[in-house]
Amino acid sequence: MYNAGHYDVIVVGAGHAGVEAAHAAVKRGAKTLMLSLNLDMIAFMPCNPSIGGPAKGVVVREIDALGGLMGKVIDKTYIQMRMLNTGKGPAVRALRAQADKPLYIQEMKYQLEQLDNLTMRQAMVEELIVEDGEVKGVLTETKAAYYAKSVIITTGTFMRGRVIIGDVSYESGPNNQRASIKLAENLESLGFDIVRFKTGTPPRVNSRSIDYSKTEIQPGDDNPRHFSYETTEMIVDQIPCWLTYTTEETHEIINENLGLSAMYSGMIKGTGPRYCPSIEDKVVRFHDKPRHQIFLEPEGRDTEEVYVQGFSTSLPEFVQHKMLRSIPGLEEAEIMRSGYAIEYDAVVPTQLWPTLEVKSISGLYTAGQINGTSGYEEAAGQGLMAGINAAAHALSLETLILDRSQAYIGVLIDDLVTKGTNEPYRLLTSRAEYRLLLRHDNADLRLTKLGHDLGLISNERYESFEQKLAAIEDEQKRLSKIVIKPNDELNAILQEIGETDLKEPLKALELMKRPKVTYDVIERILEEDSSLDIDVKEQVEIQVKYEGYITKSRQQVDRMKKMENKVIPEDIDYSAISGLATEARQKLEKVRPLSVGQASRISGVNPADVSILLVYIEQGQIKRLSEDER
Amino acid sequence: MYNAGHYDVIVVGAGHAGVEAAHAAVKRGAKTLMLSLNLDMIAFMPCNPSIGGPAKGVVVREIDALGGLMGKVIDKTYIQMRMLNTGKGPAVRALRAQADKPLYIQEMKYQLEQLDNLTMRQAMVEELIVEDGEVKGVLTETKAAYYAKSVIITTGTFMRGRVIIGDVSYESGPNNQRASIKLAENLESLGFDIVRFKTGTPPRVNSRSIDYSKTEIQPGDDNPRHFSYETTEMIVDQIPCWLTYTTEETHEIINENLGLSAMYSGMIKGTGPRYCPSIEDKVVRFHDKPRHQIFLEPEGRDTEEVYVQGFSTSLPEFVQHKMLRSIPGLEEAEIMRSGYAIEYDAVVPTQLWPTLEVKSISGLYTAGQINGTSGYEEAAGQGLMAGINAAAHALSLETLILDRSQAYIGVLIDDLVTKGTNEPYRLLTSRAEYRLLLRHDNADLRLTKLGHDLGLISNERYESFEQKLAAIEDEQKRLSKIVIKPNDELNAILQEIGETDLKEPLKALELMKRPKVTYDVIERILEEDSSLDIDVKEQVEIQVKYEGYITKSRQQVDRMKKMENKVIPEDIDYSAISGLATEARQKLEKVRPLSVGQASRISGVNPADVSILLVYIEQGQIKRLSEDER
Ligand SMILES: Cc1cc2nc3c(=O)[nH]c(=O)nc-3n(C[C@H](O)[C@H](O)[C@H](O)COP(=O)(O)OP(=O)(O)OC[C@H]3O[C@@H](n4cnc5c(N)ncnc54)[C@H](O)[C@@H]3O)c2cc1C
Ligand SMILES: Cc1cc2nc3c(=O)[nH]c(=O)nc-3n(C[C@H](O)[C@H](O)[C@H](O)COP(=O)(O)OP(=O)(O)OC[C@H]3O[C@@H](n4cnc5c(N)ncnc54)[C@H](O)[C@@H]3O)c2cc1C
Repeated sequence: MYNAGHYDVIVVGAGHAGVEAAHAAVKRGAKTLMLSLNLDMIAFMPCNPSIGGPAKGVVVREIDALGGLMGKVIDKTYIQMRMLNTGKGPAVRALRAQADKPLYIQEMKYQLEQLDNLTMRQAMVEELIVEDGEVKGVLTETKAAYYAKSVIITTGTFMRGRVIIGDVSYESGPNNQRASIKLAENLESLGFDIVRFKTGTPPRVNSRSIDYSKTEIQPGDDNPRHFSYETTEMIVDQIPCWLTYTTEETHEIINENLGLSAMYSGMIKGTGPRYCPSIEDKVVRFHDKPRHQIFLEPEGRDTEEVYVQGFSTSLPEFVQHKMLRSIPGLEEAEIMRSGYAIEYDAVVPTQLWPTLEVKSISGLYTAGQINGTSGYEEAAGQGLMAGINAAAHALSLETLILDRSQAYIGVLIDDLVTKGTNEPYRLLTSRAEYRLLLRHDNADLRLTKLGHDLGLISNERYESFEQKLAAIEDEQKRLSKIVIKPNDELNAILQEIGETDLKEPLKALELMKRPKVTYDVIERILEEDSSLDIDVKEQVEIQVKYEGYITKSRQQVDRMKKMENKVIPEDIDYSAISGLATEARQKLEKVRPLSVGQASRISGVNPADVSILLVYIEQGQIKRLSEDER
Repeated sequence: MYNAGHYDVIVVGAGHAGVEAAHAAVKRGAKTLMLSLNLDMIAFMPCNPSIGGPAKGVVVREIDALGGLMGKVIDKTYIQMRMLNTGKGPAVRALRAQADKPLYIQEMKYQLEQLDNLTMRQAMVEELIVEDGEVKGVLTETKAAYYAKSVIITTGTFMRGRVIIGDVSYESGPNNQRASIKLAENLESLGFDIVRFKTGTPPRVNSRSIDYSKTEIQPGDDNPRHFSYETTEMIVDQIPCWLTYTTEETHEIINENLGLSAMYSGMIKGTGPRYCPSIEDKVVRFHDKPRHQIFLEPEGRDTEEVYVQGFSTSLPEFVQHKMLRSIPGLEEAEIMRSGYAIEYDAVVPTQLWPTLEVKSISGLYTAGQINGTSGYEEAAGQGLMAGINAAAHALSLETLILDRSQAYIGVLIDDLVTKGTNEPYRLLTSRAEYRLLLRHDNADLRLTKLGHDLGLISNERYESFEQKLAAIEDEQKRLSKIVIKPNDELNAILQEIGETDLKEPLKALELMKRPKVTYDVIERILEEDSSLDIDVKEQVEIQVKYEGYITKSRQQVDRMKKMENKVIPEDIDYSAISGLATEARQKLEKVRPLSVGQASRISGVNPADVSILLVYIEQGQIKRLSEDER
């Protein structure tokens, strides 16, 4: 063992969580070390070649608004960009990009290499150095002891990773990487509560063996939007995806071979993600559905490898070949990589504070798939927060906890540390009570100021953000002054878009409240051709159109905040509160919520328990006194 | 176990040997399967980011003349190209390119993905299927049994790979990949003679931590040449390398810590390459040399990672940090990957026929580092030959054995299968007796016809090759007719270049025999501006200038060929030859040379033994008869 140096923050892992953690820590001024098994696979995507989508896409924008990397890097490396759900309400709209996997790695690595305060190094971490409940550093396979005030573990699915394909299983990290065994054992010996989770991935095929004429083309948007608020140049040369479907034959093959599935034979002990089910899961659970969508997604611009989205499986290889070839367009498909499931150790996330610090070990943070989540964006969001807070711990700066009304990242982390999770956790719009506030379009409005305050957003960017704010306000003001008078021309336009005639004069802003009157329509009516940024127009429109709902959501948030402001003393002794149900008491002791609001979200803690808790806290002093007298 | 399909040729591994093997087999018409641990690391360079150099560069051109990939791919992905030894004779001239590592991988993968008859798949091979001394296929970790008539193993340094850094050692393939354990055990149980070799690599550092002002710039050539005869467009935007030197302090640090070196402590059992020594080796072996060259070589265009060439080491990490920082320019260097040594199983190559087929198992071939060599080019050259011959075996086509006067690849393989090797074998110009024939400039002249005959060179390319031949001949004829007469102008030119005056009229071709009279000078004298291709001019010049030497070499080759034509009967019984020295008899039995020429190159077989062998073969029938009578 040798002393390999002192840092403020050490990040173990350079997956989607690790890179954001390291970057954020550096941006906060921390001297940071990032260790990873393979520097050629930084921010590697072991599963789908895409970033974003409902909820997840919002997270990417939130990360960007807090100064993170994911949005910038995907904007530079996508092969296709689409805005999803443009026909639906703004709460479910989101960008999704198809990524060029090798390029994404290269760009991410390059971005990190530019950071002065970051040392990036290839190494296998085997042990944490912990003294008196405080983390001190890490020890690597090569016996280097690195010391730091904060350590963040972001080891993804590597912890005691076991690959499973049918009845075959062997120790391995994702994509034939080395598994992380000793560190997993070390966490266990440090007293961590560990669960076994699993996740799966579909086969990849050679594009040249696909007959695309039997599939439907899925092109990118004509005018692609971007994730990062800093992106100015878009890649216009896009590559399409292709849609096909499973057939009855596919389902028959699967049903016939279910006994050989590692999932159904009981070989897999880990719990899989309900929201990223394997194809065998889908066939079993939705057995009357005649077919399932299969998207054929290129893995990059300069490779023929194609990802078979929707076809995740851990059936034996020979079944994979057979079932794949029962899909139109894939009759001759040549598999390049087999689908597989991977089982791994995850940390029970109720062991964490909402800062992602481990309750039992000061200065230690965990983020990403190791916390029981699944997905690149979920990992990246946690990584960012852990980086911010680990730097705060090391440098005595302000910590950051996002609440459920501020960001999907807040929802994600609150869910994890408050409720825990029984399966790989995935973000869904339905998990957010205030999803109308947590929109894709307003992530910057919600978070840029915070990012700037924390030093993650440059002054330059913050100024341009303020200009945007001003432009939105100005435009709203302007439109609230313009009066539109009914006339034939106007009503012709309204009829054309399927709206009823205007009877009385109306302010332009008011007219925009009508469902089909978009900003563009107002421009047409006013015979204007505004030079305003598309983001500004979009904001003006959404804020006006959904004003009512937004106001209602804000009121709910206010009520929630009241509960959230009722802080629970850190040293509270739940055993001293009479009347609490036993289950509630146990859960409260485990989670140790920071507020009554958080307590109320713990499953097993009922409204009655919350009331008792409230009374107890409000009368805390008195109660404790009277107990002392007993 | 399931039947995963039938192929003509299976290639295990997709390193530099594997990719050429697969490509060549496909080009010969074989339905081919290539299996590799990680499809994201095809043709990965675990050590220096460069291709070519003396002898090695010639191999790249030979590979290209036989239709291989290496030259084409590096021509598309280099960051710098240099012709080495331009001031020296043509036998030692050679191109060397600095490679963009990630791009090289991407381009190689892409090229292979285009091959119709190739299935490329990620898998860990664990066993060979062998029946009655014949290979039948391979078995993977996922229990897929692939069948084929020929199998080529190209597993590089993965076989029971063990990484060693100072006193630390652990099981691992190169660059933290999974090691190949079961296949190594399988080879042993199949009776293979195995040796332990080792090789090492230097640390990589972040470019941004280097002070280049203390180093010397090493730019690429202004007019870069190419490796492949098919390349037409060159990359002109090049990136420089940088030269610095070790210091006395470096040597002191190394000497002080020699005891901790895995090499000197006896921890490393494997034999290392004498011609790629570690820095500690160099300091010990050349202890009076005050400094050693260190080249700083970028690992690619879009990365800050820099390879520290000349600094290969297996000293403990803390020593690496210290000694690195004693080098001018590297005082603040941040290591991104540590140097390390890797120990691995290699097959004793005298177990192979010159086709690279394993003598004891028909249809099984081995190529690349597993055969005891070191270097990308050495691996690629063998891979190409194994691919050609494995396809021949599977499809009953002609095999190809290159002799020592045809190609460096011939020298390499003849050395391996005839002499074996006690250390990782590296090609050097000194290994070739006929190096004046085995030039960089004439690789196409030597081998294109062969490549075309084997179906590896397209008709189109062959035609343009024939045009080149014709152009060379025409130009030689033309110049042999032009008479240059002495006059003041001419003599001024001759004086300018340092030649003596011309006294008598002379043919232009004759004048070019003078050392300093290049083709360009002749052009100047004749006041011509030839539109001939630079390759043609070069050829005319070299053939004329070195005519005498070349003729002498050819005479030597003829003598050698006579011996080479004396075929030894395959069923020869060496124990029946009286008079052979015991050592010679043993060696001959082991190597089983195909010709008296090959026999004469076996170390331990003396001229006296060769004479006895010659007599025995020539009188074979008689001798055998008389013995039968005994
Ligand atoms: C087979 C598979 C299928 C998946 N399927 C889906 C899916 O369907 N949907 C979905 O949303 N998500 C899926 N995912 C999950 C997604 O890939 C992850 O959520 C995401 O990559 C997690 O990011 P991370 O940063 O937490 O971990 P990772 O991206 O896994 O990164 C882990 C990092 O830690 C490093 N590391 C590990 N151990 C050590 C150690 N001891 N010392 C140093 N470094 C170490 C690794 O080198 C790596 O850099 C799947 C993942 C896999 C492997
Ligand atoms: C640390 C290090 C230092 C080196 N230093 C030098 C040097 O200084 N000078 C020099 O000239 N050369 C050096 N080399 C050697 C050079 O890298 C190799 O000679 C060259 O890469 C060998 O090519 P190959 O194709 O034989 O094997 P590799 O390039 O190693 O490729 C092996 C392939 O086999 C695959 N594989 C392995 N096992 C299995 C299996 N069981 N199933 C399926 N696939 C499998 C791998 O995935 C990989 O694709 C070094 C190599 C290493 C690792």
